[in-house]
Amino acid sequence: VATRIIPVIMSGGSGTRLWPLSTDARPKQFHALGASRTLIEETASRLRGVHGDLEFLPPVVIAGEGHRDLVAETLSASGITPAAVILEPMGRNTAATAALAATVASSIDPDALVLLTPADHLVADPAAFLAAIKAGAAIARDHIVTFGIAPDRPETGYGYIRRGDQLADGVFAVAAFEEKPQLETAERYLREGGFSWNSGVFFFHPDVMLDEFAAAGAADIREGASAALARGRRNGSEVKLDRALFGAVRAEPIDIAVMQKTKRAAVVPCDIGWADVGSWSELWRLSKQDGQGNATMGSVTLVDGANNLVRAEGVHVSAVGVEDLIIVATKEAVLILPRHRAQEVKSLIPKKPG
Amino acid sequence: VATRIIPVIMSGGSGTRLWPLSTDARPKQFHALGASRTLIEETASRLRGVHGDLEFLPPVVIAGEGHRDLVAETLSASGITPAAVILEPMGRNTAATAALAATVASSIDPDALVLLTPADHLVADPAAFLAAIKAGAAIARDHIVTFGIAPDRPETGYGYIRRGDQLADGVFAVAAFEEKPQLETAERYLREGGFSWNSGVFFFHPDVMLDEFAAAGAADIREGASAALARGRRNGSEVKLDRALFGAVRAEPIDIAVMQKTKRAAVVPCDIGWADVGSWSELWRLSKQDGQGNATMGSVTLVDGANNLVRAEGVHVSAVGVEDLIIVATKEAVLILPRHRAQEVKSLIPKKPG
Repeated sequence: VATRIIPVIMSGGSGTRLWPLSTDARPKQFHALGASRTLIEETASRLRGVHGDLEFLPPVVIAGEGHRDLVAETLSASGITPAAVILEPMGRNTAATAALAATVASSIDPDALVLLTPADHLVADPAAFLAAIKAGAAIARDHIVTFGIAPDRPETGYGYIRRGDQLADGVFAVAAFEEKPQLETAERYLREGGFSWNSGVFFFHPDVMLDEFAAAGAADIREGASAALARGRRNGSEVKLDRALFGAVRAEPIDIAVMQKTKRAAVVPCDIGWADVGSWSELWRLSKQDGQGNATMGSVTLVDGANNLVRAEGVHVSAVGVEDLIIVATKEAVLILPRHRAQEVKSLIPKKPG
Repeated sequence: VATRIIPVIMSGGSGTRLWPLSTDARPKQFHALGASRTLIEETASRLRGVHGDLEFLPPVVIAGEGHRDLVAETLSASGITPAAVILEPMGRNTAATAALAATVASSIDPDALVLLTPADHLVADPAAFLAAIKAGAAIARDHIVTFGIAPDRPETGYGYIRRGDQLADGVFAVAAFEEKPQLETAERYLREGGFSWNSGVFFFHPDVMLDEFAAAGAADIREGASAALARGRRNGSEVKLDRALFGAVRAEPIDIAVMQKTKRAAVVPCDIGWADVGSWSELWRLSKQDGQGNATMGSVTLVDGANNLVRAEGVHVSAVGVEDLIIVATKEAVLILPRHRAQEVKSLIPKKPG
């Protein structure tokens, strides 16, 4: 018999490190970054159809209320009709979102597993991802399965998962979730092996997740999210969460609220071409470059330039004699900074845009 | 008795070296460059009112047909009402424009002198300019007076005027008009003295100018312009030149058609803070700079930058760690290039803008 899976896509985060393209009005997941379609379309599209024993049901999308139309337009462009769209009146972090995911999925199909995933990551090898999901499916009915990305560099921007005993073919217990490390520690992780990046994707049966909220002392988050859902305003397959009730939910990351405390965490180490496209310098690294190391997108004239990322969105950009720069232009704003300072973007966003 | 002067403002040229700010739709003279008002307003404003013996009458504006509304809006913002607006259906170079200037001015007041000036230059010392006009007025009834700008550098981008015998106090015959020189020649001009930049401003009685067209073998230009004016479509103080007749006029610069041939050219050497704002690097030089040599205008965040010109028009620009760059952003296009390559702008304008 097939394993039915409900993908639950978390369209959260503001992606301010990708300003001026990514904005509150149209954050990162609604842009084509490192792929021809938007990241949310890419996410939904890799979790569709029947693959051997895996059967993906229509997705649930959990998004900010302000992105309601953007979600509908973007997914319909790829022919995707969500089973439900849950609209959060404000962000209450990922624990609340995970509780919503479990509750909604259970009401759609109490037997199906949930594949809870951010909407703004890239997976270059979807077949390898499917294989990892298949491995995880073997134990997902009584574990919360994470996907541990094989690190190829001592990255200090991600949390790490330390692998414990083997639980099944390709699946391990989680020995520890490690916070974002210092460089030395990250280098040690890479040297020692047994560590992988925490991709932020979770695979579980709704009952397990809901039980583990209680076991981890986070029943209040589960109850709060559930109440906000029950009192939410329904319109077809769409639910606007009750503002007062959801606003009262404790805001905590799922990693802290549940994952670091549960004894049922598992990890599938995998190499799936995962990238979170967390900065312009990473996008440059991921992009197709010309012989001079330039990655350009949009209407761009680049003369005598090397190792630049130049992206023009709705405007034309002409640049001459520049090197190692990020140049991103929209109709509202222009960003110009050295690639190695890409982390400073947040400090450059004007208080009143445009 | 007062000398009545009709300023005739030539709103010509496309100013493509100041792209993307300056465009065919809104060229250089309709932008505030190096001053708080647009260059055409600055031009009209410095030639107003009564100054000792000089009485300026309302100006005549000669502009491209496509800039009709722009001229009206811009000048009315400074409370200037032109005596006449002559609209050229296409550019036929400055000889045709000078012939129009003389013909129109003569019909307004046959006794008045004409001060024919481009609309897109800066004059930092208007009082010195008025003094130079006063000096020229002594002989402008039987000469075509030019204004020779004291050079402060061996500029190769301008034509030069070599001074001859003195004709009156502060006024000299023109010994020769020299083409834009090579650097060596420009350095010699600066060393030897007696050379000044040709500002492109002319001061004359209409009859003298019209006579000199004939004397220089350019009567056809004068007749053609006159016919296009006579057959033009009048609407209040506005005349749209006849398209077919004006299109048939020989296109030649006034310098070549008349000035290099006439025996009645005179020059008033002067130091009036003149600048033609011919490039972004010149605008940087002319602009107020901060302690790091940065000139910024508009909504700009600049961090760790030195010796840059950054101009944001209708958009925000954030730039980090850049040096010696020109950065100009509008809602349609963005230009980024080293200051010393500012002359390459023309080659960077996309065929189909935006």
